[in-house]
Amino acid sequence: MAEWIADKKEIDFILYEMFDAETLLQHDKFKDFSKKMFDMVISEARKLAIKEILPTLADSDQNGARFENGQVKAPESFHRARKAVIEAEFTSPTEDPAWGGQGLPYLISIAMMEYVIGANYALSSYVNMGHGTGKMIEIFGTDRLKALFVENLYTAHWSGTMLLTEPEAGSDVGALTTSAKKNPDGTYSITGNKIFITGGDHDLAENIIHPVLARVEGAPSGSKGISIFIVPKIWVNDDKSLGKNNDVQCTGIEEKMGMHGSATCSMSLGSKGNCRGFLLGQENQGLAIMFHMMNEARLNVGFQGSSAASMAYLYALDYAKQRIQGKALHDMKNPEAKSVPIIQHPDVRRMLTWMKAHVDGMRSLVFYVSNLFDTQGLFPDTPEGEQAGKLIELLTPIVKAYCAQRGFEVCVQAVQVHGGYGYISEFPVEQLVRDVKIASIYEGTDGIQAMDLLARKLGMDGGKVFTGLLEIIGKTIKSAQDNTTLAPLADELEKTVNALCLTAMVIGGTARSKKYATAFAHAYPFLDVIGDVCLGWMHLWRAKAAADALGNNTKGKSRLFYEGIIHTARFYIQTVLPVTLGKMNSVQALCDASLTIDQTAF
Amino acid sequence: MAEWIADKKEIDFILYEMFDAETLLQHDKFKDFSKKMFDMVISEARKLAIKEILPTLADSDQNGARFENGQVKAPESFHRARKAVIEAEFTSPTEDPAWGGQGLPYLISIAMMEYVIGANYALSSYVNMGHGTGKMIEIFGTDRLKALFVENLYTAHWSGTMLLTEPEAGSDVGALTTSAKKNPDGTYSITGNKIFITGGDHDLAENIIHPVLARVEGAPSGSKGISIFIVPKIWVNDDKSLGKNNDVQCTGIEEKMGMHGSATCSMSLGSKGNCRGFLLGQENQGLAIMFHMMNEARLNVGFQGSSAASMAYLYALDYAKQRIQGKALHDMKNPEAKSVPIIQHPDVRRMLTWMKAHVDGMRSLVFYVSNLFDTQGLFPDTPEGEQAGKLIELLTPIVKAYCAQRGFEVCVQAVQVHGGYGYISEFPVEQLVRDVKIASIYEGTDGIQAMDLLARKLGMDGGKVFTGLLEIIGKTIKSAQDNTTLAPLADELEKTVNALCLTAMVIGGTARSKKYATAFAHAYPFLDVIGDVCLGWMHLWRAKAAADALGNNTKGKSRLFYEGIIHTARFYIQTVLPVTLGKMNSVQALCDASLTIDQTAF
Repeated sequence: MAEWIADKKEIDFILYEMFDAETLLQHDKFKDFSKKMFDMVISEARKLAIKEILPTLADSDQNGARFENGQVKAPESFHRARKAVIEAEFTSPTEDPAWGGQGLPYLISIAMMEYVIGANYALSSYVNMGHGTGKMIEIFGTDRLKALFVENLYTAHWSGTMLLTEPEAGSDVGALTTSAKKNPDGTYSITGNKIFITGGDHDLAENIIHPVLARVEGAPSGSKGISIFIVPKIWVNDDKSLGKNNDVQCTGIEEKMGMHGSATCSMSLGSKGNCRGFLLGQENQGLAIMFHMMNEARLNVGFQGSSAASMAYLYALDYAKQRIQGKALHDMKNPEAKSVPIIQHPDVRRMLTWMKAHVDGMRSLVFYVSNLFDTQGLFPDTPEGEQAGKLIELLTPIVKAYCAQRGFEVCVQAVQVHGGYGYISEFPVEQLVRDVKIASIYEGTDGIQAMDLLARKLGMDGGKVFTGLLEIIGKTIKSAQDNTTLAPLADELEKTVNALCLTAMVIGGTARSKKYATAFAHAYPFLDVIGDVCLGWMHLWRAKAAADALGNNTKGKSRLFYEGIIHTARFYIQTVLPVTLGKMNSVQALCDASLTIDQTAF
Repeated sequence: MAEWIADKKEIDFILYEMFDAETLLQHDKFKDFSKKMFDMVISEARKLAIKEILPTLADSDQNGARFENGQVKAPESFHRARKAVIEAEFTSPTEDPAWGGQGLPYLISIAMMEYVIGANYALSSYVNMGHGTGKMIEIFGTDRLKALFVENLYTAHWSGTMLLTEPEAGSDVGALTTSAKKNPDGTYSITGNKIFITGGDHDLAENIIHPVLARVEGAPSGSKGISIFIVPKIWVNDDKSLGKNNDVQCTGIEEKMGMHGSATCSMSLGSKGNCRGFLLGQENQGLAIMFHMMNEARLNVGFQGSSAASMAYLYALDYAKQRIQGKALHDMKNPEAKSVPIIQHPDVRRMLTWMKAHVDGMRSLVFYVSNLFDTQGLFPDTPEGEQAGKLIELLTPIVKAYCAQRGFEVCVQAVQVHGGYGYISEFPVEQLVRDVKIASIYEGTDGIQAMDLLARKLGMDGGKVFTGLLEIIGKTIKSAQDNTTLAPLADELEKTVNALCLTAMVIGGTARSKKYATAFAHAYPFLDVIGDVCLGWMHLWRAKAAADALGNNTKGKSRLFYEGIIHTARFYIQTVLPVTLGKMNSVQALCDASLTIDQTAF
């Protein structure tokens, strides 16, 4: 089982050889920690994942969440696993200990969370979603709301949700019709129906706290007239004890492609005229507040993609080492030759190396963004901190959409490595394919992310955030060009970055011209190539760190580990980036045929 | 419902404007047909698919095949649908009427089969697999075997299967251990266990005829010592009446990612020492005979990919026209603007055009190969007929793997167009994703196809079959270069074909050098780019046919239809082929990192 959870050696490599997690300890904020404590937290998370979370994966899929007598029952195995995560205090690792958090750096937290979240994302929705709800209240809530909710949400004694979507308001949140009316006591009465609500109801926590988007009577139409309310499933008294049931009812759950353990609920609010909630922030501020949480949620979805990919890769690797089938290529005509493990076949190695390259690259990128959160938090009001914040904004749609998509592709590839066994439910990889597909859809589809990138993020500060990113990549290239082994790889990446710069100018210019619609018809492929380049950057960075380690006379197994990192970087840069260049040419061609074709001709 | 089955206008365009199905009528073999009869057959198939087959799709997935009391029960709805297909005589359309076939050209048959097979591939395994078993017996069987089996198989009164795979013999068929011993009466006693047997047992037909690969006692090891036997589920008496049960038992069925309606059986042969079968052909000829059927099966699997893609595209198109969400891009800042159908959003149009380009391209390619079968059959012992046969061999692994993979990708894209609704089972597209995934695996994985292409097909006749294909593509290019509208597209395709020629030389040369393993590590991407180029070829061909039709003063709806074909070709050539060029550069780079990386470093 242990093999199928990210290797700690790889995690340590990213934390301490690519990045420099130890320097975080020099800051006052983290003065109570030590490297030993970081190690301990990560090791504990790994153990917990192996012992308590991975065993829930099959139950999650095969039995799933059920809707019985008007209530949702989570898969049986989730009760114990969720309790274990709560007891280990892994639910809000980066939050203030005063509110029940652990005060860890984001970089350490993400390493820990790859185990806790990655081992079963369907479970994690019941364990970690309260954090987002709590954070929103911590930042935008009154002292009373904070006192009522934050700690119980951060510690996951209560769960959180996000009630945005309605049947006619999906990607276009502004179209929602759920309404709110102010009561004399300052609370609001809410009426409406929501759909696709993850964890909208379940039997795992004693209470569920719903942030609900709704429109106060008389508010402007569209997204400007949306407010956000905190609506508890069970009313919370001023002493935090639980009162009466609120008028929030789950009316059913969806049958889905995957993520069966995670209940996707239809919710009815105020069907008996009696649903009450607290306004969060001011009226009509709802979308701005929700988006604060949404960005975190989007990064988590990217992380879901990369975590699922990591598991799928490790399962496929394990299978490829065990499965004996066919002779080695050089022995094909030798009648005496024995069959070999399929990892020896070139096509299987191609698939595994491709998977490893994407898994390692995506993980490095996700960890990089986590590191940016630390920089932002440690250096507020400095150019460094501000740049970090803006890079997070730029990278959020990329990490979300790119890691969701490549995460899915890696899982599909894992099925392929398994051959016929990959298609049957006895092996876990087909489940991973089905589970992770949702990542390209929820929290804003990949298409929405691409629009966000092209319409808002590319042009931030007159394009300086984007060119700033290219400059940072340039520094990694420069440092690698000094190394004779890595110089050819650095040159290749440099060529690709230059092409990206040109591509961005072409599509960015078109987006501001009369032909803007054509630019948006290529927004997603544009996002995709930025993701490719970011992974190339991560691989060169990794290769440089590995080359440095090899320079220190590393021996034995470690030597092979570091050399493997360089081989993987070479594979990515020589095999994937040429395709990326082709994709950039495709974007630059800005073909408008998809727009000029008549609708009746489809 | 009708919208979700391939448009007859599109089918007619391929048959009569791209290709020239009418000239088939000039041949003696088809003298009893007329264009009207061709039309009727295709229209009937379409009606049947809409009325009888499409309605089985959800039942197939949700209820699936069940294993009860040692027997397989097919989904309830399959009984009626299967009967309807049999009554319509759609089970062996191209076979000799003397054996129960309809004697139709392959080109007409494939159009018909897109409806009958494509509407539910899980059902088709019970309806059309008998044809393959029957064909094998018709070609290689004794008169007695032919008299016993062929007609009942062709008419699907009895079903057929393929018993190849064993737990330790998947891709490497030569490793199988099922054994056969000759009896004094000339039959053989078979003993062994098979797995992953599609339709190995069910309650739809009165008998099931199993072709079984086994090793006669004392036969050579490996693939040279394999024989093939015809093993009926129920013994068939000389007067074709049914005798006693044979000792062939289904011991269970697999839980799978999709294709739930199609039973994937574990089979036990001779567990009571009493399984009898007839030898087909000579001893140790088994693989050669099986491969005769296998090639047809492989083309069918590619067809499965393209048919599923077609349905998924049409579902997505229908949804995109109906679903109102978000304002049009040009109205984004107009507070009064109404929401529009999502087909108006550039990113949705990109997805739909991409899907249409692949669906139309794959269908054209599959129909082209069917047309080659007609040419082969009509002109035996002529250079034209022989070339057709060799092109079929060359194109078989490409059609199989490429259409399986792109078919899957199109279905995934259909989910994406549906947003959250695509992920839930209420909509049909997530099922299509799960169903079609198997196409990349069974009948030889995509990796096996790529090896077949690089090791055997590329070098056929010293490479002349491959260069012959490029010459045929060149003729389409030349004819389009004479048209001013199409000339730029033709030039682009020409550039890509030249790059393919170079790529083939590079990888082909490497495959014959000491670095052959590196070549095989790029065999699949090489297959993939040939597929891309074939689709570009089909699109240019389609565009030329459409331009010719437009030249005849076509008006109104037809005009938009033909223009749509040209727009789609332009999309494919300007948007997809630049990426293909990038992929060729990647193949040509022949990076060996996936082979040099140490196994412990994965």
